[in-house]
Amino acid sequence: MLLISCLVYALVAALAAAASNGHRSQSHLGRRLLPQPKQKNGASFAFPTKDPFYRVPADVGKYPLGAILGTRQGNADAFGQFAAEAHQILYLTTDYTGAPDATVATIVIPIAPRPGKPKALAIGSAVGSASIDCSPSFAYANPDKSKNLPLVNIVDSPASTAALFRGWYVVIPDALGSKSSFLNGLTEGRAMLDGIRASRNFAAPLKNADFAMMGYSGGGHTVGWAAQEAASYYPDSPIIGMVTGGMPADTNNTFYTLNGGEYSALGFQGAAAMGHARPDVQAVFDQHITHAGRANFTKMLSGEWCLIQSSRNLSGVPVQTAFTGGDIFQNPVVAKHMEEEKLGKRVNRISSIYYHARNDQIVPWPQMVHYINQQCEQEGARLQLSWATATGHILSGLRFMPAMLNSLVQVLEQGYKVKTCGIDAQSIPPVPEGGPGLTDLIGHGAANSIAYWRAQAKNGLFPL
Amino acid sequence: MLLISCLVYALVAALAAAASNGHRSQSHLGRRLLPQPKQKNGASFAFPTKDPFYRVPADVGKYPLGAILGTRQGNADAFGQFAAEAHQILYLTTDYTGAPDATVATIVIPIAPRPGKPKALAIGSAVGSASIDCSPSFAYANPDKSKNLPLVNIVDSPASTAALFRGWYVVIPDALGSKSSFLNGLTEGRAMLDGIRASRNFAAPLKNADFAMMGYSGGGHTVGWAAQEAASYYPDSPIIGMVTGGMPADTNNTFYTLNGGEYSALGFQGAAAMGHARPDVQAVFDQHITHAGRANFTKMLSGEWCLIQSSRNLSGVPVQTAFTGGDIFQNPVVAKHMEEEKLGKRVNRISSIYYHARNDQIVPWPQMVHYINQQCEQEGARLQLSWATATGHILSGLRFMPAMLNSLVQVLEQGYKVKTCGIDAQSIPPVPEGGPGLTDLIGHGAANSIAYWRAQAKNGLFPL
Repeated sequence: MLLISCLVYALVAALAAAASNGHRSQSHLGRRLLPQPKQKNGASFAFPTKDPFYRVPADVGKYPLGAILGTRQGNADAFGQFAAEAHQILYLTTDYTGAPDATVATIVIPIAPRPGKPKALAIGSAVGSASIDCSPSFAYANPDKSKNLPLVNIVDSPASTAALFRGWYVVIPDALGSKSSFLNGLTEGRAMLDGIRASRNFAAPLKNADFAMMGYSGGGHTVGWAAQEAASYYPDSPIIGMVTGGMPADTNNTFYTLNGGEYSALGFQGAAAMGHARPDVQAVFDQHITHAGRANFTKMLSGEWCLIQSSRNLSGVPVQTAFTGGDIFQNPVVAKHMEEEKLGKRVNRISSIYYHARNDQIVPWPQMVHYINQQCEQEGARLQLSWATATGHILSGLRFMPAMLNSLVQVLEQGYKVKTCGIDAQSIPPVPEGGPGLTDLIGHGAANSIAYWRAQAKNGLFPL
Repeated sequence: MLLISCLVYALVAALAAAASNGHRSQSHLGRRLLPQPKQKNGASFAFPTKDPFYRVPADVGKYPLGAILGTRQGNADAFGQFAAEAHQILYLTTDYTGAPDATVATIVIPIAPRPGKPKALAIGSAVGSASIDCSPSFAYANPDKSKNLPLVNIVDSPASTAALFRGWYVVIPDALGSKSSFLNGLTEGRAMLDGIRASRNFAAPLKNADFAMMGYSGGGHTVGWAAQEAASYYPDSPIIGMVTGGMPADTNNTFYTLNGGEYSALGFQGAAAMGHARPDVQAVFDQHITHAGRANFTKMLSGEWCLIQSSRNLSGVPVQTAFTGGDIFQNPVVAKHMEEEKLGKRVNRISSIYYHARNDQIVPWPQMVHYINQQCEQEGARLQLSWATATGHILSGLRFMPAMLNSLVQVLEQGYKVKTCGIDAQSIPPVPEGGPGLTDLIGHGAANSIAYWRAQAKNGLFPL
C-alpha cells in the first residue's frame, strides 16, 4: 500500500508540475500548446502469467525476427502529459539458444513528434525478477497491480518522460523474454533488438527513425548485450548510439559481490531465472535444492515475489543456502553458464556511453574498467566510460540521470559519437554544463521524476 | 657527404619555399611582413665532447634546478625564416640518481611572437645515440659537422618550423644529459623539465608562457617521461599539454623487438649509454664484453658513431654478440635496470596525446595499449592514443606530423584537453580535417619539411 500511495503521489505531483509548466516549455520549443486527449486503458489486464496476450504461439517458429504476433492498446497515462498513445505488441524474438520466443513491448507515441527524421528511444528496463508478472509492460498497463512498478519506474520514468517531452518515440521491450530470463545476456540483447525491429513494423514513422538505447543496472545489462550483439544479429539496425549506466559486465563477479549482502535477492532472482531458462542448470538445482529454497524460487518464478518483495525476505541471505552441498555456483554446469554471462566476446561497434559510480556497491567499478579496456583494444570499439563518486547503486542512477538524458539528446539530436574509446578523465558534473537548463532539456516532468525517485530512494523505498 | 648534400638541399628548398610564400602567410596571420635580420653563428663550435661550454662545472651541486650556468648565441639560420634569434644555454638538472648534472638547451625566439599570453613548444629530440656529439644543440649549431642531423631534424624541423611560424618560442633541451643517457627515462624527463625551467630563467616572455611538449620516438620517450615526472619533479610547471608519437613505453619489450633486426643499432646505443650512466651495469658489461664489442661501444660513446653510422655497421647484429656468456640482458643487474625503464610507475597528469602506428615495427602497438590502459585506470590520467595503420616507424612519424602539429595548435591556442582517457575509435586522417588548410596551419616551411623528409625516408636515408 505504501508503494502504491507513493506512486499515486508521484504521478499526481509529476502531472501537476508538468501541467503548470507545460505552456512555457511547449511554447519555448515551438510545440503544440495543448496535449492531445489520451486513450485510457489497461487497468483490466490480467497478470501476464494469466494473460493469453503474453502466450507464445504454438506456431512461433514460422515468423521472422521482429514479426508482430499481437497488438492492443496500452495505457498512455502512465507516460505523462507528452504521451499521445501507448500500445502493446507481442513480437517474435529468439532466446540465447536461438529458439524462437515471443515477448511484449510497450510503444509510446509522443504528442508532438520532433520535426525532421523521427527519433526513438528504446529503453532497457530494470526488472530484476524471474517472472513476467514483474515485466515493464504490465507495470505501465496496470500500475496499481504491478509489484515491480517502483523498480521499473525509477529509471524508465525519467527517461520516457524526457523522451516524450523531446518528441521522441519510446519503445520499452519486456527484454527478458517469455521466461523473464533475468541476467541472460543473449536472450535480453536479442529481445531488445527484436523489440526495435518490431516497433518499426508496427509504427510507420519508426521505419525511418534513428534509435538510441538506454538502460540502467539490469536495464543497462539488456542494452549492453544488445549493443554487443547488434553487429551480428541486426546488422542493418537503425541504432545510432547507446547510453547506459550501472551495467554488470561480469555477472559472476557481480553475483559474488552482492551475494549474502543487502542485495542478495538479485542473486536469488538470477538463479531462479537461470534454472528456468537452462534445463541443465535446473537439473543440478533439482538435485540440491532445499524445501525452503524451492518454496522461495517458486514465489519468484510465479510472480508472487518481484525483486522488492524478495529483497524484504532475502536480504543478507547467501543464495547457496537454498542448496545442499558446496557452493552450487562452482558446479561445472552452473559455473559454465555464469562464465557465459560475461560481456566482451564480441566488439560493441555502437557508439556507447557507460555511466558508472566508482564506488558502486553492487556492480564493482573494476569489472567495468576491465570491460572498457578489453573492448577499446579492438578496432571499431567506441565505448566511453563516464563516472562519478556517488553513493549507492540506485541513487547513482538518479545522480547520473540528467547526464544520461543529456547524452541521449546529444546522440539523437546532435550526432554525438564517441571518438576516444576509454575512461573520462574527470567526474561528470551533477547537472550537464554548457547547454540549456535541465528543465529545458528534459522537461519539468522528467526533472520532477528524478527528484521524486531520489527522495524515495533516500527514504529507503529500496534497500538498493 | 650524401647526407650533408641532402641537408643543404633541404634547407635551401625549405627556405626558398618559405620565402616565396612568406608574404602571404604572414599578412594572412597579421604578422610583420618582413623577417628580422638574423645573427649567424655557431659554425665555429667544437664537438661537444671537446667543447668547454658543455662541461659540467665542478661546483654544479650548489645550483638550483634550471639554473643557468652558461649562455651563448646559437645558429638561428637552422630554424628557418621565422626564427629571430637562437641561443644555447647550459643549465642545471639531475640525473636518474638525483645527482646534479648540467646539459645544454637551444632556445629559439620567433620573429613575431603570438600576441597575448606567450606560447612555447619544448621539443624532445630523437637522438638515439650515446654521445653528446650527437646532441640536438650541436646539430643545430653546426649542421655541417653533426653526424646526427638527419635523425634530429626529421622530427624537430617540421615541429620547430611550424612553432616559429605560429609565433611560439621553441626550447630544445639536450635531454639525454651530459652522458647522453639514451633511454634513461628519469634522466631524460628531468632534463626536459629543467630545460623548461631554465628557459623561463633565460627569456623573460617565457616566465608567463604556456608550454606544450612534443617529441617522436626517442623524443617521445623524453617527453613521455617528463610528463610522468612533472607532477612530482616540477609541480608548478607551466606545461598545459603534451603531444608525442612512436613512444617506447616499455624499453625491455622494445629492445627485444628490434634486437638483431634492421634497427639493432638502437639496442647497441642504448646498451652503451646504459653502461656509461650506470656503474653497476658497466661492471657486468666489463666482465663479459668482447674486444669487438668494446671497440663498437667506444665508437658510440666517443661520438664517432651516432645512430646512423652505427646502423650501417650493426643492422641485423644482436646486441648480445658484443658479450660472452648467455643473454646479458637477463643478468639480474642489467635486467633490473631494463625493468626500471618502464613508463607507468606514476600517473601522468598532463593532458597528453600519443600517436602510434598499429603496425610500428620498432615500438610494438600492444605495449602502448597496455600503458594507456594502465594509466587510464587511475584517476587524473588524461591520455589519448591516436593511431593509424602506417608503414614504418619513421615514416609513421611523418604521416602523423600534420596531426601532431594540429594537436599542438589545439593545445596551445585553443585550450584543448583530453576528456576521455583511452584509444581513438577511428584512425586519424592524413591531414587534419575541419580546420584551416595545412599550410595555413603550420606554414609552408613545415609542410615542405615534412614532404622533404618523407621523400628522404622513402629513399632509404634511414633504414628506420
